[in-house]
Amino acid sequence: MSESESTTPTIGVFDSGFGGLTVLRALIDRLPMARFAFLGDTARLPYGSKSRRTIARYAAESAQFLVNEQGAEYLVIACNTASALALDAIQDAVSVPVLGVIEPGARAAAGASRSKDVLVIATDATVQSRAYAAACQALGLRALEKACPLLVPLVEEGWAESSSATGAVTAQVIQIYLAELTAQAAALGLDPDVLVLGCTHYPLLRGMFEAAVPVGVGVIDSAQAVAEAAAQGINGRVTADAGARGLPTEIRCFATDSVEKFERLGSRFLGRPVGKVQLVDLGG
Amino acid sequence: MSESESTTPTIGVFDSGFGGLTVLRALIDRLPMARFAFLGDTARLPYGSKSRRTIARYAAESAQFLVNEQGAEYLVIACNTASALALDAIQDAVSVPVLGVIEPGARAAAGASRSKDVLVIATDATVQSRAYAAACQALGLRALEKACPLLVPLVEEGWAESSSATGAVTAQVIQIYLAELTAQAAALGLDPDVLVLGCTHYPLLRGMFEAAVPVGVGVIDSAQAVAEAAAQGINGRVTADAGARGLPTEIRCFATDSVEKFERLGSRFLGRPVGKVQLVDLGG
Repeated sequence: MSESESTTPTIGVFDSGFGGLTVLRALIDRLPMARFAFLGDTARLPYGSKSRRTIARYAAESAQFLVNEQGAEYLVIACNTASALALDAIQDAVSVPVLGVIEPGARAAAGASRSKDVLVIATDATVQSRAYAAACQALGLRALEKACPLLVPLVEEGWAESSSATGAVTAQVIQIYLAELTAQAAALGLDPDVLVLGCTHYPLLRGMFEAAVPVGVGVIDSAQAVAEAAAQGINGRVTADAGARGLPTEIRCFATDSVEKFERLGSRFLGRPVGKVQLVDLGG
Repeated sequence: MSESESTTPTIGVFDSGFGGLTVLRALIDRLPMARFAFLGDTARLPYGSKSRRTIARYAAESAQFLVNEQGAEYLVIACNTASALALDAIQDAVSVPVLGVIEPGARAAAGASRSKDVLVIATDATVQSRAYAAACQALGLRALEKACPLLVPLVEEGWAESSSATGAVTAQVIQIYLAELTAQAAALGLDPDVLVLGCTHYPLLRGMFEAAVPVGVGVIDSAQAVAEAAAQGINGRVTADAGARGLPTEIRCFATDSVEKFERLGSRFLGRPVGKVQLVDLGG
């Protein structure tokens, strides 16, 4: 084993909220020996309704906090809006490698699709950015996108357990959205065989989506896709094998506001306690 | 008929978004001869996650726009968050009468309740402000509040038609929320006979609520309550009779951002076309 394989780099993970904890969770699965610093810019939520210039400034400030103050040597942008509108600005603002969430999702869809027709569901802001459509098109895919605004609040309400009465509501909502989307695809003459979950909240609904998609349609989780791409990017510096040595993963979580909600809901996204979330002030 | 009865005052109606159009609708029903100027401060949504000082500044600026630039002689604050946190600041900022949405709702509940135990449903921000609880308590009522975060997105998705598959989902969500709330009331030994709809989006779900509440529980719509109180405040200057003369209601709508969404969804709240929404810039 070379010297470089035994280092434990710090990976910075950024989101406008805490949905990106699903990306952190997928990263930990692949890089259990790394150190992680997660920042949720919760004070300036939602990014989706703000201008590109404002989002770029917020995202650049957040990235600089993770790199300059937390020592991140690699950045994962676990926020669809920031990935869609501010990836260039973030790359200009810091000198470490930066990976957005959209490109890996599109790449995973391209790898999984034989028909080259894919469905993408996301928030209204992400759909309006057309970022997935553009990334898919660049890879030779035809993408049909649909905004599903009810899914984030359903996840945040905790209505994601398929065995409960509340989960039955969420399953019904998913069924309605998918019926609308597949009807639209059929009307356009598309033959989709992949559904991309293009929002960091949606991995909590993955089982429901897998139960609801038509036969022959695979589900791509963009949180898994970006974690896979990040692990390959960091490959050789940390190995999954290192995790087997039994050292605990180091995770530091930061938020610019709403620490209470972050701590209360975050563990559901991360799949383990988020611990104490530190409040940071990035300015107005 | 006296001189004063023939004047047509301008009534300013303010909301952080466009849900307050349900209040405007209720006002038009009672004051069809008045002129109305509605401002939705959509660029700075959501107020609920911001500090009291920031909300006070935004609300005061919005109120000054309606009074100083649109000639409003009476202001209705059709926004629960601004009513809860910034009514004093608005009253200090302008010299016309200002009516918030919470006090009339609580007063209508007090008038309708015999047990003096009432239920209040609202957004998370309104519940956290404890404004309804305080207003109810001041009137001798015990109020049990519940945040229902799914209802605003359900209304904005247009899933409010009870005869449709999407409306069935909303009815199910309402049933779950009400079951939780009435179970909690029973556990506390309360005997509620009134449910207050404490959010300007909820009037679009009024029929569903009336079908879902336990027998003996009345539904109070705070949009109707504030319109009633405003009409009494303006009483003698405009009469409903004047509307019978057939002159059209004059409505001007303004928004600080998202004019497209306002125009697209607004008519559903207003019960008639909102027409052209004018974009205004109130600063950052």
